[in-house]
Amino acid sequence: MKFRNGKFTQQPDELAPETPLQIQLLGTSDHAPKSVAITMRTPGRDADLALGFLFSEGILQHADQVLSVEHRDADTESGQNTLIIKTAPGTSVDWARLERHGYTSSSCGVCGKTSLEQVHAALPFPEPLARWKTSPEVIIDGPEKLRTAQQNFARTGGIHGVGLLNLAGELVHHAEDVGRHNAMDKVIGHAFREGWLPLNEHLIVLSGRASFELIQKAAMAGVQFVLSVGAPSTLAVSLAEDQGMTLCGFVRGGGFNCYCGVGRVEIT
Amino acid sequence: MKFRNGKFTQQPDELAPETPLQIQLLGTSDHAPKSVAITMRTPGRDADLALGFLFSEGILQHADQVLSVEHRDADTESGQNTLIIKTAPGTSVDWARLERHGYTSSSCGVCGKTSLEQVHAALPFPEPLARWKTSPEVIIDGPEKLRTAQQNFARTGGIHGVGLLNLAGELVHHAEDVGRHNAMDKVIGHAFREGWLPLNEHLIVLSGRASFELIQKAAMAGVQFVLSVGAPSTLAVSLAEDQGMTLCGFVRGGGFNCYCGVGRVEIT
Repeated sequence: MKFRNGKFTQQPDELAPETPLQIQLLGTSDHAPKSVAITMRTPGRDADLALGFLFSEGILQHADQVLSVEHRDADTESGQNTLIIKTAPGTSVDWARLERHGYTSSSCGVCGKTSLEQVHAALPFPEPLARWKTSPEVIIDGPEKLRTAQQNFARTGGIHGVGLLNLAGELVHHAEDVGRHNAMDKVIGHAFREGWLPLNEHLIVLSGRASFELIQKAAMAGVQFVLSVGAPSTLAVSLAEDQGMTLCGFVRGGGFNCYCGVGRVEIT
Repeated sequence: MKFRNGKFTQQPDELAPETPLQIQLLGTSDHAPKSVAITMRTPGRDADLALGFLFSEGILQHADQVLSVEHRDADTESGQNTLIIKTAPGTSVDWARLERHGYTSSSCGVCGKTSLEQVHAALPFPEPLARWKTSPEVIIDGPEKLRTAQQNFARTGGIHGVGLLNLAGELVHHAEDVGRHNAMDKVIGHAFREGWLPLNEHLIVLSGRASFELIQKAAMAGVQFVLSVGAPSTLAVSLAEDQGMTLCGFVRGGGFNCYCGVGRVEIT
């Protein structure tokens, strides 16, 4: 039901779908899969989401650790909400790490981490690239390229987008989700499967705010340049700064603000 | 550093602060406080945040269960990031509940809940009020009243706001935080301290999207009408519907959409 111009009308409004996805790991010597996490996600690109999550949480490192990724039962609705990742022989999963930093570590505000330092310590960030170049146009045009590609956002208005630009400013991949961390995981998972990691010759564009967990996930994937349409949080800036990342926010209306790392990138 | 009109200028940009707050509980027979949760929050109204969190997670039910709320050491920066809630004699804390639904239950997308049903089952929602009345003006003007009160948002642009309106449409309280769930907890915590709960004769206004965890917290506090400037998620709508809540989104430009519960409220 809509209220417009002083009147109610019966009109349905399309909403962004959001259902739980359970991510399970199954090793070659395991009798049954173990549940790693449950995330409320927009269905679609579930394999990317799961792989991106496992990579950005430090559980998996390489695509060759993965034998298969399958929904438990693709024919039932509940089966589609459980994804089983079979790991290759010899893949060791640090379950203690899962417990410790675990499935609450980077995707929520209320979580088990006891300090920013502990989060820092847990991240095996790749070495940053040497100084590289981009242009203000690449930065300014990034969000518009993501928006154009974001069909769901245009339709429902309730979905976060994450885009991956190459250094020439071309959008090479993007993903959407009601959860911003899921959209980031979907992009990282795709890069993981494609062998693109580390993403140190790409820019990440965020449709909304740059939050701590998004910078954390980007840093895990080796990203060195993040653009956000919205504001970054102070924790996001301090993590980006620590990691030698360049972070620009409020990329809109032909302008932007740079919060850190500008010296490392030539913007001309 | 800012880029405007084709040029870089050295101008600082104020950011919304975000630091971790550790919430600890100390019973009268406990030797040492136990950590309940750590949340990344915008400092300010920490007591409201902690009490709202403990209430909306189902840990505390009444203000008389609380003896005192104090920062561990108000003189040191790290001490200000730890809040100790002393519970009154006879207060029993269901630690198993904390473990089970625990500090990850409602504030993150990646969490321990295994199904929406489980979340529903955990919530002792108050009975809804009988049918009551409001007007389109109260709904349409709500977000603007919140925005006017949101000083931080105007300054930094990166902060979520939650407002509490009475049935006449007056903004009786509001809170801000980089984390939307924190802003909601701050409002609920204030109501908890003031003895306003359940909030079944108030409207909640959200500055952004209506996500599942915000509806969950609102429902715990007995809220029956939620307005959001942004879109609700489908899970948020289904929870609101189950709880007999009225949920209107996209409250902007003089219009709004109602997703559920319209029959229960007379909007004239």
